[in-house]
Amino acid sequence: MKLVTFEAAAGVRRVGAVVGDHSERVIDLTAAASATPQAALFADMLSLIDGGEVALDQARNLIRAARQTAPMSGVRLLSPIPVPRRFRDFLSFELHVRQSRANRHLFGIETEPRDPAKIQIPKVWYDRPIYYKSNCFSVVGPEAEIHWPSYSLTVDYELEVALVVGRQGKNLSTDTAPQHVFGYCIFNDFSARDVQYAEMPGSLGPSKGKDFDTGNALGPWIATADEVDPQNLTMIARVNGEEWSRGHSSTMYHPFAKLLAYASLEETVFPGEVLGSGTVGGGCGNELGRFMKHGDVIELEVSGLGVLRNRIVAPHVPRPPAFPIQIS
Amino acid sequence: MKLVTFEAAAGVRRVGAVVGDHSERVIDLTAAASATPQAALFADMLSLIDGGEVALDQARNLIRAARQTAPMSGVRLLSPIPVPRRFRDFLSFELHVRQSRANRHLFGIETEPRDPAKIQIPKVWYDRPIYYKSNCFSVVGPEAEIHWPSYSLTVDYELEVALVVGRQGKNLSTDTAPQHVFGYCIFNDFSARDVQYAEMPGSLGPSKGKDFDTGNALGPWIATADEVDPQNLTMIARVNGEEWSRGHSSTMYHPFAKLLAYASLEETVFPGEVLGSGTVGGGCGNELGRFMKHGDVIELEVSGLGVLRNRIVAPHVPRPPAFPIQIS
Repeated sequence: MKLVTFEAAAGVRRVGAVVGDHSERVIDLTAAASATPQAALFADMLSLIDGGEVALDQARNLIRAARQTAPMSGVRLLSPIPVPRRFRDFLSFELHVRQSRANRHLFGIETEPRDPAKIQIPKVWYDRPIYYKSNCFSVVGPEAEIHWPSYSLTVDYELEVALVVGRQGKNLSTDTAPQHVFGYCIFNDFSARDVQYAEMPGSLGPSKGKDFDTGNALGPWIATADEVDPQNLTMIARVNGEEWSRGHSSTMYHPFAKLLAYASLEETVFPGEVLGSGTVGGGCGNELGRFMKHGDVIELEVSGLGVLRNRIVAPHVPRPPAFPIQIS
Repeated sequence: MKLVTFEAAAGVRRVGAVVGDHSERVIDLTAAASATPQAALFADMLSLIDGGEVALDQARNLIRAARQTAPMSGVRLLSPIPVPRRFRDFLSFELHVRQSRANRHLFGIETEPRDPAKIQIPKVWYDRPIYYKSNCFSVVGPEAEIHWPSYSLTVDYELEVALVVGRQGKNLSTDTAPQHVFGYCIFNDFSARDVQYAEMPGSLGPSKGKDFDTGNALGPWIATADEVDPQNLTMIARVNGEEWSRGHSSTMYHPFAKLLAYASLEETVFPGEVLGSGTVGGGCGNELGRFMKHGDVIELEVSGLGVLRNRIVAPHVPRPPAFPIQIS
C-alpha cells in the first residue's frame, strides 16, 4: 500500500491510500473507516502505524471495498507522518562521505585532499552506522515551501530514503529488524551547509546546519514494507527539471536492517520513528559544487516511492539572527 | 511552585506540588482539580505546561485551598516530564570543556595538551551555544535505576541544570527568551564515555554514547521560573555520599536566556521542550579521572531544585551488542 496524510479541508487531516496504475487516485481511509469499529485506527498516520497488522489488514479491506476515490491532483498532501515520534539521520553511503569531504574546500576548509578517492574516512564510520538526531517539528510534505534560514548563504538538498518504524523493539539483530519496519518514503534533508561545516569543530554534530523550520521534507507517501526492496531503489534528484543526482540504494555500506538494529542497541525504538539513510553518493549540491537559489524547485524521485517536490523560498525581509553567527 | 509527576498507583500518574519548609509534603493536583472545570489542565505535566498562566494560577489556588497533603517519603516520583517534547543538551561551561578535553588521554586520545589551561577551544564554541539532541524516551526520574549499557566500559554522570520551555516562540532574543521559560530542574546526563569518544571522529556528535534506555535522569521537581535565579545556583554531585563535584551556574559562558534564544533561531520551540545547560566545570568523572561502578549511588543537588538520586546497575546477564562495537 501507498499511504498518505492529506488535508481534506483547512486543518482537517485524513489518512489515505494512493491507488491506480499511475498513483493517480486517493481513497480517504479516515472517512471510509468512520462507520466501522476500527475508526480510531485511522485517526492519523501514527494511529495507523500503532495499529500494526490489524490496521494494515483493515486498510486493505477498505481499499478493496472503496467506491469513492478522488484525483491526486485535487488533494493537498502533507508529510505522511506530520510529526515523527523521533527522527534520526544516518550517513551510510561511502561515496557521499568521500565526495562531501573532498569538497570542504568550497567552505574554506583545506584539511583534506580534494580527490575523493584519497579521503581517509574515520574507522568508526566503517565499524558502525553513525547518526545524529534530526528535528521532528520541522517536517513538511510534498509541494511545501522550504524557508531559507536567514543565517545561511548556502542551502543544499540531500537525496535520501527514510525508513518508518512499525513496531517497538530493542536490541534487534539485522535478521529481526526487518519485521519492525512499517515502510519507506523519500526524505529531503535540507541543510544550511555553511553553518553545518562551521559547527563541526564543536564535536556535537550538526545543529542549526539542519535545524530550521521546514528543513525536513518527507513524502509523498509511505510505501509499506511488503512492497519495497529497500536495497534496490534508484534515487534521482532534479533541480528545475535538470537532473543533478542519480544513485542507488544498493550502494549503502550499512543497509537499512543494520541501521534499525543499531538504533535499537540498548535503546527502545518505537512505532512512528523515522530513520534517514543518509545522502546517496552524488545526492547533494555540496558534492557537485552547486547550491540552491531562491525559487528553485527540487524534485526527488525514488523507485516505487513517488516524487517529492519542494520549492526553496528565501525570506522576503532578511532578518538578522539573534546573535552574530560567524560562519567562517 | 515545585511541580512533580508521581505514581499514585501502578500506571496511575498524577501531577503534584511539593510544599513544606523542607519540601516534605505533596499535594495531588490532579485529584484536587478533578472536580473543577480546569481538570484537563492537570491530566499530566505537559497539559499543565500547555495551560500557561491560567494553569499556573489555578495550581496556586489549589495549593492554597488544599486540605490533604501526603508525605514525600511515601510518594514514588517519576521524571517531572516523563517524555519531553524535545530534548537538547548544550555545552556551556568553559571549564568542563577544558578539563574534559585535557583528560581524553584516559581514552587513548593524545591529540590535546593534558593541561586544561592550554586547551585550544574551537572558536565556534565561543561564537554560539552549541548543542546536540538527546533521547526523549530514555528519561527517568528520581530513585530510578540507571542501566549500564552492555557496550560500554566507562559510564559517567554529568551534573547539569535543565530549562523547561513554557511557551511557543521563534527567533527570541535574550531579552524575550526568559518570558518563555516554564521552570528548571536537575539533569543527570549519563554517558557511555568510551563510546562517546569513539563516535566523535564521525562528525555527527554523540549517539550511542548518550542514547541508551534510562540514560537521562530529570527531577525531582520543576521549580517554576518565578522561584529560580538560573545563573545563581550551586551545583553539587555526590557518589556514595562523597562529594565529587561542586560548581556554580554563574560560570556558564552562554547563560540560559541565550541557550533558549539560540534554540529558537529560525526554529519554533514548543512548550515541554527541555534544554540542558551542559556539565558544570568539574561536574563529571571524566574531568576527575574517576568513573562509576555497579551499585554506585549518585546524587545531584542544586539550590532550590532538590536532590536527584539514582543508582547505577550493571546488566545481570552481560549481553553482546548486535554487532562488534570497537571502542578503541
